[in-house]
Amino acid sequence: MRVDVLTVGTELLLGQIVDTNSSWIGEQLAAHGFDSLLQVKVGDNLGRVAAALRRALADADAVVVCGGLGPTHDDLTRESIAAVMGVELELQEDIADRVREIFAARGRYMPDNNLRQAMVPAGASVIDQTRGTAPGLICPVVVDGAHKVLYAVPGVPHEMKDMIERAVLPDLHRRSGEVAVIVSRTLRTWGESESGLGERLSGIIDELDAVGNPTLAFLASGWDGMKIRLTAKAPNRAAAAALLAHWSARVQAIVGDQVFGYDDDTMESVVLQRMRERGLTLAVAESVTGGLVAARLTGIAGASDVLRGSIVSYASDVKFDLLGVMPGPVVNEAAAGQMALGARRVLDSSIGLALTGVAGPSEQDGMPVGTVCIGLAIGDTVRTTTVRLAGQREQVRQLSVIAALDELRRRLG
Amino acid sequence: MRVDVLTVGTELLLGQIVDTNSSWIGEQLAAHGFDSLLQVKVGDNLGRVAAALRRALADADAVVVCGGLGPTHDDLTRESIAAVMGVELELQEDIADRVREIFAARGRYMPDNNLRQAMVPAGASVIDQTRGTAPGLICPVVVDGAHKVLYAVPGVPHEMKDMIERAVLPDLHRRSGEVAVIVSRTLRTWGESESGLGERLSGIIDELDAVGNPTLAFLASGWDGMKIRLTAKAPNRAAAAALLAHWSARVQAIVGDQVFGYDDDTMESVVLQRMRERGLTLAVAESVTGGLVAARLTGIAGASDVLRGSIVSYASDVKFDLLGVMPGPVVNEAAAGQMALGARRVLDSSIGLALTGVAGPSEQDGMPVGTVCIGLAIGDTVRTTTVRLAGQREQVRQLSVIAALDELRRRLG
Repeated sequence: MRVDVLTVGTELLLGQIVDTNSSWIGEQLAAHGFDSLLQVKVGDNLGRVAAALRRALADADAVVVCGGLGPTHDDLTRESIAAVMGVELELQEDIADRVREIFAARGRYMPDNNLRQAMVPAGASVIDQTRGTAPGLICPVVVDGAHKVLYAVPGVPHEMKDMIERAVLPDLHRRSGEVAVIVSRTLRTWGESESGLGERLSGIIDELDAVGNPTLAFLASGWDGMKIRLTAKAPNRAAAAALLAHWSARVQAIVGDQVFGYDDDTMESVVLQRMRERGLTLAVAESVTGGLVAARLTGIAGASDVLRGSIVSYASDVKFDLLGVMPGPVVNEAAAGQMALGARRVLDSSIGLALTGVAGPSEQDGMPVGTVCIGLAIGDTVRTTTVRLAGQREQVRQLSVIAALDELRRRLG
Repeated sequence: MRVDVLTVGTELLLGQIVDTNSSWIGEQLAAHGFDSLLQVKVGDNLGRVAAALRRALADADAVVVCGGLGPTHDDLTRESIAAVMGVELELQEDIADRVREIFAARGRYMPDNNLRQAMVPAGASVIDQTRGTAPGLICPVVVDGAHKVLYAVPGVPHEMKDMIERAVLPDLHRRSGEVAVIVSRTLRTWGESESGLGERLSGIIDELDAVGNPTLAFLASGWDGMKIRLTAKAPNRAAAAALLAHWSARVQAIVGDQVFGYDDDTMESVVLQRMRERGLTLAVAESVTGGLVAARLTGIAGASDVLRGSIVSYASDVKFDLLGVMPGPVVNEAAAGQMALGARRVLDSSIGLALTGVAGPSEQDGMPVGTVCIGLAIGDTVRTTTVRLAGQREQVRQLSVIAALDELRRRLG
């Protein structure tokens, strides 16, 4: 079933507001097994909204139109839908009463134009408003003999999301004749590209393509790593969970310890949790990342149980004088190891983690941009490694953070 | 002149990436006086991209298509344009050489599919790539006897922005036959809300509403502060510059030293530049921001001239033992002052800047969430101040960074 999306608002076209509504709706539609092949932004203009609706209905089975349901003169979605349906707008007294009640409950005077929100195209049914004053609409339309449907929801994100989840998705499932629940599970990974993972998982991907359920998607997420999302459709939640458990175990058997967590886990939450469980504390010494490792760890409330602090040793002689690095070039594994030991000593922690590297724009110590040396002092051992990261300054810095935290995660076991 | 926008990518429809490109393009078009009445997202499908291009060209004078110019099999914008133009794709050897050079310079093997980027629809001209490997395209199209134009630019935001500014907007101005130039100037401010600035500037805003040129817009930009953008249209660049100079001086006379810079200046670039000019070096001690101050300063290439480093003293006893803070509660101005002195001593700099505060989720030392104490050690003086910031954990952390750097900026004079 194809469900296209139309977002209405001149401010969207002017770039004053980024249209995140259609992205959110698109994500929900995909998770529920509906295709969305065209998503259109159009301004507050009756003729153009109506034209865009007609075009969308020509190709799609259903169209969600978002925005333009408010009380002001430039809220024209209702009129546009009536024009497309070839019907009149009718005042529904129960909605008018509801709008009056909402104003009364807030102790506010109601300008008359708010009653525009009680106008409903003849033949449409209403999605009750539970948060704002504008109700949504479900409008059956016949196009070239085919029965299609237009859904109108407000542009205010929390009102829109409420109506999509409460009314639009269930109605779409009813019309598509499917009764099912949709549940997703995301495997969080780091260490391999989308193409590399795709190659290793090609057998599973082929099997899933054949059965069609669950679906598997890769989501490249920068310094949040590569997400592998499984989405299962099943008659009930227990059946969906069983499907996800089976397939995520199969994926994990192949991807192995590149999987660092699930769903809302992040690399930093996983590292902090493992250290907390083992009663370990962490000190960081960072140069190339300039504070980003500590900033990212301290983004998590409660990091103070584990993180003692970080020495951002940006000047070379801070590395020498404070951290005890041997004077000389500072982008190499020996320096990274000495920084890790220095951080552990100065900040009095059980583990020291250090990064030194070249973020660019130009090379340093003869090392090319993207070279990052990671040092890790745990117990009596110091382990060091060098990674080469792609991209320009900010990307190198950000990828360095997850690469170093992943090194720590693996050593924690 | 009507310029519609088409963004290409299945990931946009699935909500995996929010389409910020069309918003940015829409903003530029509006600032340059062009109408953009429809902006469409479409997936990586030759037939659908071509159909969307044809529809857009039927209504608009020009269409910008963004994305789908990469090397892989699902990058289909070139083929779609050739289909719409009714021409073949031709390999341009000079582009192929350029792509080969880029890979060679990076010391990387070039998979053959990269040469797809050297395929150009017959009759199109090329927008040279200066950042990525994919060039852009300018494609003249005749629709029902009318001369129109298709611009293709990459979906990678910094490549797209470069090509829009360097090639697309100038070409649109040439075609629109307008001799006017549009120039913007942005005053970067920190310290007051949009409504506060709006009230103080209401006289100027009324005058500008009456004359209509330049226009004035506020852009609330989080930890980048509040931007005031003036956009002038004039027959030539000198006239536009004169208009902007006049009005930005009038705005600045009212806003005063809350203006910390212009256009591409950032709070951190301004602070680093002022310190560099005065031969000063900086050491930071941070707790509430957990490394964000240093991370933000080191985001600027060349920060190492000024920034010695930062001590992220997350654990209280790191403040006591390493920085010499008097043991006791740590969220107060006395502690901030001692941290600033400690950072300056330990990292051997001319100036010490320190932050201690409560990011939340819960209060600390009896201080409410959003309390941030800033300490500044310059010469023989230590100055401290306390600010109250709104928002939740991440917002408090980010606003703390610009608040502290602004404190430093003001003391530098």
